[in-house]
Amino acid sequence: MATYLVCFVLLFSFVNSLKYDPTWDSLDARPLPSWYDDAKLGIFIHWGVFSVPAFSSEWFWWQWKGKPMPAIVDYMQKNYRPDFTYADFAAMFTTEFFVPEEWAEMFQDSGAKYIVLVSKHHEGYTNWPSKYSFNWNSNATGPNRDLVGELAAAVRAKTQMKFGLYHSLFEWFNPRYLDDKESGFKKQDFVRTKTMPELYELVNAYKPEVIWSDGDWEAADAYWNSTNFLAWLYNESPVKDTVVTNDRWGSGCSCKHGGFYTCSDRYNPGKVQKHKWENAMTIDKYSWGYRRNARLEDYLTIEDLLTQFISTVSCGGNMLMNVGPTKYGKISPIYEERLRQMGQWLRVNGDGIYGTKPWVHQNDTVVKNVWYTMKKGATETDVYAILLEWPDNNLVKLGAPITSKDTTVSMLGYPEKVTWTAGAGGKGINIQIPPLSVETMPCEWAWTFKMTGLQN
Amino acid sequence: MATYLVCFVLLFSFVNSLKYDPTWDSLDARPLPSWYDDAKLGIFIHWGVFSVPAFSSEWFWWQWKGKPMPAIVDYMQKNYRPDFTYADFAAMFTTEFFVPEEWAEMFQDSGAKYIVLVSKHHEGYTNWPSKYSFNWNSNATGPNRDLVGELAAAVRAKTQMKFGLYHSLFEWFNPRYLDDKESGFKKQDFVRTKTMPELYELVNAYKPEVIWSDGDWEAADAYWNSTNFLAWLYNESPVKDTVVTNDRWGSGCSCKHGGFYTCSDRYNPGKVQKHKWENAMTIDKYSWGYRRNARLEDYLTIEDLLTQFISTVSCGGNMLMNVGPTKYGKISPIYEERLRQMGQWLRVNGDGIYGTKPWVHQNDTVVKNVWYTMKKGATETDVYAILLEWPDNNLVKLGAPITSKDTTVSMLGYPEKVTWTAGAGGKGINIQIPPLSVETMPCEWAWTFKMTGLQN
Amino acid sequence: MATYLVCFVLLFSFVNSLKYDPTWDSLDARPLPSWYDDAKLGIFIHWGVFSVPAFSSEWFWWQWKGKPMPAIVDYMQKNYRPDFTYADFAAMFTTEFFVPEEWAEMFQDSGAKYIVLVSKHHEGYTNWPSKYSFNWNSNATGPNRDLVGELAAAVRAKTQMKFGLYHSLFEWFNPRYLDDKESGFKKQDFVRTKTMPELYELVNAYKPEVIWSDGDWEAADAYWNSTNFLAWLYNESPVKDTVVTNDRWGSGCSCKHGGFYTCSDRYNPGKVQKHKWENAMTIDKYSWGYRRNARLEDYLTIEDLLTQFISTVSCGGNMLMNVGPTKYGKISPIYEERLRQMGQWLRVNGDGIYGTKPWVHQNDTVVKNVWYTMKKGATETDVYAILLEWPDNNLVKLGAPITSKDTTVSMLGYPEKVTWTAGAGGKGINIQIPPLSVETMPCEWAWTFKMTGLQN
Amino acid sequence: MATYLVCFVLLFSFVNSLKYDPTWDSLDARPLPSWYDDAKLGIFIHWGVFSVPAFSSEWFWWQWKGKPMPAIVDYMQKNYRPDFTYADFAAMFTTEFFVPEEWAEMFQDSGAKYIVLVSKHHEGYTNWPSKYSFNWNSNATGPNRDLVGELAAAVRAKTQMKFGLYHSLFEWFNPRYLDDKESGFKKQDFVRTKTMPELYELVNAYKPEVIWSDGDWEAADAYWNSTNFLAWLYNESPVKDTVVTNDRWGSGCSCKHGGFYTCSDRYNPGKVQKHKWENAMTIDKYSWGYRRNARLEDYLTIEDLLTQFISTVSCGGNMLMNVGPTKYGKISPIYEERLRQMGQWLRVNGDGIYGTKPWVHQNDTVVKNVWYTMKKGATETDVYAILLEWPDNNLVKLGAPITSKDTTVSMLGYPEKVTWTAGAGGKGINIQIPPLSVETMPCEWAWTFKMTGLQN
Repeated sequence: MATYLVCFVLLFSFVNSLKYDPTWDSLDARPLPSWYDDAKLGIFIHWGVFSVPAFSSEWFWWQWKGKPMPAIVDYMQKNYRPDFTYADFAAMFTTEFFVPEEWAEMFQDSGAKYIVLVSKHHEGYTNWPSKYSFNWNSNATGPNRDLVGELAAAVRAKTQMKFGLYHSLFEWFNPRYLDDKESGFKKQDFVRTKTMPELYELVNAYKPEVIWSDGDWEAADAYWNSTNFLAWLYNESPVKDTVVTNDRWGSGCSCKHGGFYTCSDRYNPGKVQKHKWENAMTIDKYSWGYRRNARLEDYLTIEDLLTQFISTVSCGGNMLMNVGPTKYGKISPIYEERLRQMGQWLRVNGDGIYGTKPWVHQNDTVVKNVWYTMKKGATETDVYAILLEWPDNNLVKLGAPITSKDTTVSMLGYPEKVTWTAGAGGKGINIQIPPLSVETMPCEWAWTFKMTGLQN
Repeated sequence: MATYLVCFVLLFSFVNSLKYDPTWDSLDARPLPSWYDDAKLGIFIHWGVFSVPAFSSEWFWWQWKGKPMPAIVDYMQKNYRPDFTYADFAAMFTTEFFVPEEWAEMFQDSGAKYIVLVSKHHEGYTNWPSKYSFNWNSNATGPNRDLVGELAAAVRAKTQMKFGLYHSLFEWFNPRYLDDKESGFKKQDFVRTKTMPELYELVNAYKPEVIWSDGDWEAADAYWNSTNFLAWLYNESPVKDTVVTNDRWGSGCSCKHGGFYTCSDRYNPGKVQKHKWENAMTIDKYSWGYRRNARLEDYLTIEDLLTQFISTVSCGGNMLMNVGPTKYGKISPIYEERLRQMGQWLRVNGDGIYGTKPWVHQNDTVVKNVWYTMKKGATETDVYAILLEWPDNNLVKLGAPITSKDTTVSMLGYPEKVTWTAGAGGKGINIQIPPLSVETMPCEWAWTFKMTGLQN
Repeated sequence: MATYLVCFVLLFSFVNSLKYDPTWDSLDARPLPSWYDDAKLGIFIHWGVFSVPAFSSEWFWWQWKGKPMPAIVDYMQKNYRPDFTYADFAAMFTTEFFVPEEWAEMFQDSGAKYIVLVSKHHEGYTNWPSKYSFNWNSNATGPNRDLVGELAAAVRAKTQMKFGLYHSLFEWFNPRYLDDKESGFKKQDFVRTKTMPELYELVNAYKPEVIWSDGDWEAADAYWNSTNFLAWLYNESPVKDTVVTNDRWGSGCSCKHGGFYTCSDRYNPGKVQKHKWENAMTIDKYSWGYRRNARLEDYLTIEDLLTQFISTVSCGGNMLMNVGPTKYGKISPIYEERLRQMGQWLRVNGDGIYGTKPWVHQNDTVVKNVWYTMKKGATETDVYAILLEWPDNNLVKLGAPITSKDTTVSMLGYPEKVTWTAGAGGKGINIQIPPLSVETMPCEWAWTFKMTGLQN
Repeated sequence: MATYLVCFVLLFSFVNSLKYDPTWDSLDARPLPSWYDDAKLGIFIHWGVFSVPAFSSEWFWWQWKGKPMPAIVDYMQKNYRPDFTYADFAAMFTTEFFVPEEWAEMFQDSGAKYIVLVSKHHEGYTNWPSKYSFNWNSNATGPNRDLVGELAAAVRAKTQMKFGLYHSLFEWFNPRYLDDKESGFKKQDFVRTKTMPELYELVNAYKPEVIWSDGDWEAADAYWNSTNFLAWLYNESPVKDTVVTNDRWGSGCSCKHGGFYTCSDRYNPGKVQKHKWENAMTIDKYSWGYRRNARLEDYLTIEDLLTQFISTVSCGGNMLMNVGPTKYGKISPIYEERLRQMGQWLRVNGDGIYGTKPWVHQNDTVVKNVWYTMKKGATETDVYAILLEWPDNNLVKLGAPITSKDTTVSMLGYPEKVTWTAGAGGKGINIQIPPLSVETMPCEWAWTFKMTGLQN
């Protein structure tokens, strides 16, 4: 009788664990693990064989051979022997200065709560020793190292960040993929022998807590077997309880199915969305991969970055901010500067960012360049107004908040209370910042005012 | 009624075309296309990424990383950066001097009737742009050329030789192969996704008339799906009527199943075999691939080669004589010399070689270093005695032939008849060669006496 | 009679042109061309074969083979074949992204008035096609370009900056130099055949207006023939009227003879010197050449740079600020950021810098972090107080200025007059800055107050 | 008084040692050290940076950039980046398989009595660490070895051969040479700072017993300072008693002044010369340096070589037979075969070669393809007739020898005496060779008949 009971319990727990079917209805119903929405900032890392030419973008191969761009064709003609191939670059992917602990520290210092490393881009080269990418992986040619494994270990040993992985479903020039494509995606050889085995291998080996899928757009999810993978990921994988995924699982999926929505690159809709979303964007305006010839003006300033970040968070998004390391394994100082500036800002203003939700208003009718966030506590709600520009005469006029007698206002990073008056007709609030010089202000680029006891 | 008939005819012709079952009983029963036995001499060509280090042998990778040999480990330490990988060699496989027409002419001039080019060795690198070897093939890294296709075209355009291909079933370091192996060869992922698709692709694309299989010994033919491939090859492939294969189709097959038998490398049993066989051997005694540091003494002399060749043919074998081209696409002059010396000899003595069969005797009890061959005509049979050493006093004493009154003797390349007397007791024959100086003899290294009208 | 006169005139003009003797007494008496003292800021550029390893510093070769540093020996062992030599790096000095016009624009935008490019460092490699450096120059191996010539042309075509050149007298490993050294510098083969012919060649070919000599310290100027060169430079060279030189012309010369004094690297004495001097310093704290593995913290911030610069100018020095371009010809964005930040500051505050002289005071007894400069006009004298830190309560209290009734004060970049009161006892001045927010202040990092009508 | 005597002796010995003046009259009067005429065969070795492209010839650089040949321009365009320079090849001159003892053994086995290694060709790259070729020598870039020193040591330790060095006076692209040339060779900067210091350095460091000068033809010996060098070489150098030199010491010198005459390349005048001469020739018909794309037909056969050699010796010349090693330090097997074939022949026929003098006749009026040599002993004179073709009917008919009753004839390598009869009218000799098969003849390619007791 006890045996029966045990069996029953086991069976129940098994059925329970397999709670998701391989259908979008079922998969989309899975709640997003909460760590993700709280995290707000992640670091995206584009690294691969494209980091060797480090010219134009991580789409170099395609721009050279797929749909040739004159600038790249010309670059190759001027600098390489005529028969040089893209795969020939791999031997020069040396990574000699890659110290994963240094990267981990730097990313953590940026205030990010997770990272997403490219494990394989459209070129098909795997940054780990995949069984399914013979002699086209980081152990077999170039670094002679498991780049994914080394960074995963360092992030886990040295930081509290979550470790995630980007993975491209398709590969521009993989002949099996092209074969399947030619069949109108009736054949699935590529999926069965390459891209799906890889994904399972990645999850089992490195237990990533973000799977950032890409390269899906040419074929439907039925071709990719995406829902089967996701059902396994959510039901059985070693990260089934904590993993989050994005929405690039087949043509038509983006912005519609999956975990958080990324929609298009640099997605920033400017208003609250019904579904959790992410703004995946780049510090180098023109490329995700490192460009050796990028100029200062090609990089977003910290002001640009904060504008993106604050508006994103205010509207309920996360920002995934991309850096492109060099082929020798360093993150160049201009990227490092941006990362550390973000961290510097977040150490002062993080209260208005991490763990927040969108407020009833995001913008303000009275003043531009302010974005709101909100944090609900047990008893009270804090509303944060983050100003991107310093107000004239140190006077912040906001239209959205409706004050009460219990309203208090503080400025993050400034120890003393800040005085305020209700706006005209009881609408809005006027906050008077005390005189603060460049040396006494809590930070240099955007300022957060925390309001409690509002009526809205 | 007519419809029935058509159906019947179609069905019959289909059944007829599918005359071989995927069983050894059926496959082994296929008669060997006759061109092969007539051909006697083929050229084997070992070329691949191993031609870049060109050190030790074509097993370089295995000798470095599989079962390390100190000489190779030492060589790598002294000449490369520590993280250099085998795949990194591929970009240096330049083939800039490869003119396939030159090779074709040279092979033809050697007197060979077929060539066997390595399409893929145990390293897994394909010398053609295989769909199944992404970025590890001659179009994707290194030459940027279809080496197999170019040589096939040249051989067909410029010569009468048959074009054949070597193909290794296994790949030392392919992780899918290693996976299958770990499963006790219960899994067949490697076979299904790599090695068999490649073989079909090769046959369909290049229509080779020899498939020289290798790398089979670690697993049974059931693992490799060899019999299915062979049934297709013999029943349906574009070369079904002319193709010959060897015997390396799974552990235990060698010397037992398949087309001609190769048994072990440099197989030369010294007596007639029941089954057609081939002596696959190398001009460089120690390597199939090119060795940059080979010394003169490491190469067989023309005398060595003729000894091998004549004894092989006498005992019913073919000889497949191997050359190893350089990474830049040239066959080095020492190889060329041996090839042209063979041709020089065969232009004089080819009558006693091409199209011959083993005679009742191969050796002779009276004199050493003579080998017999035979050619049956409509009315008469020619017996050839090929001497490897010049006889004392220009007198050739043979024990095996039994003369008749109609017996005539000639020396190939010498315009006049040669006198003879019967041996003691009517057994054997004594042939008196006229005085021939170094300048008047038909050739320098081995001499053929053609006897007609023998009683045996 | 007229002939006599012509001769006399010619003779006179010749004698006149040869006004300097090759003695320090004579040479040191030459007035420094005035453009130099007015310029205040120059850009130093360290570029050469050392930019290929781009590791540790431009002393890489010496640190590897001269006096081995473990970190460099280790780096070479891990990343290169054992027999790799320093000269082997040269072929990798590719400069493919070097667009000299871009550099010229960037340097000009920094506010610099001159640049000093390394033409040859201690490695001996010449960045121009020198006759005296066969196959060890930028035309013969690596770039296949005249780097000096290209940058000179761009600077002259696109900017108003002066073009100068750094040149190392000695070469660590040149065997002729080592020979001379072994002779106790009694032999001068190296000087006669290499270093001096090069210098003359440089001056004649590129007409540099700064000769920044270095590498002099192991031998006296008598060995180097420095005074002869300088006499020629001042008397006869194409730049005789405008060229300035530094003080590194032989052991014992530094800080004592020649043009401006550089004394030691990063020389910044903190007080006025009798002789014009230059603070040659680096943005990368640890290296003059590019370092691929430099971290953000290794670069001086703009605040650090301004502190150096302002204190230097206040004490009568120029600052020569060094950048290290990459082997592919780009100035990395972190350097570009520092350069453009300097320019941004100088566009506001240049009035207090360019063309100024030291005032009677440099520092102030009342407040720290203020530095004074002065500009004498026809009728009045302007005194500039440059504050490195923002004052408490916007109140600048200075001890040094003695005001008069005519005293006026303005803040550079701020359109309105600024109010002041005399300090206690008529000594000093208290300047009240109006409330300025981060958005309304003229610049971000250091602020200049211009005072006219002072009594001192 | 004793002091005077000592002084006198010293003075005398000094004067004695300085017996040659720097004039051709004096230098040309020096007797050639006898070892040279006895030696007959030397090995010439062309090795340098040109061995890296190993294409076209050792004049590669000139053929690419000096007077461009389309084949080379095309080769470079197809195989290298556009900005690749000749000096960039140097880093690939790896010599990893160079074992000097192996070369020494091989050269000795060829029967050669001296070798002449290229120490520096027209490219200017020195195969030893010259003080005068900074970073353009074998220690500084490429091999990281002293190639000259290593081979000198091996030859001396392992063989009885003399060690000699080739040295090019001019350098195609050395700007100092071009400068001197532009001055109409009035300037001698190149001679004073590069080529002559090198020569002295070479002699002092490696004590070569042959100085094979070259590259002299554009300027007179007065420009090169040749006579001064030779006077030093003969009077004071460490090899003053044994050294031999050739005749390329300035335009107009060749075939006229110096030691042995080389006149033009492959000089073989076909008759006795008044002055000792040398036939410097190549086994590869088209190149002195290694060619990776050379074909078998491009190499002289052993028959070709013996024809050259025997005719050369017969007319009083030495033969300097050239091999071109590979960039990785091996002498390719085809060269090795030729070398060892020469040795095989000389071990049988050396008596008719080494130490011989021209006889009164070189050719013969009766039979073609015979060459005579002679050796005078104390009491008798041996005359050698060397046949390049085997005679009809084994009967050698010679017209030149006049026999006596004491005449004896033998065939080198054949143990028994050979019978002869006097020719018709007592003129000439008919030698009957006994029947010799291919196995019993002493050698394969040329046969020497030694005659004693002739009347002439």
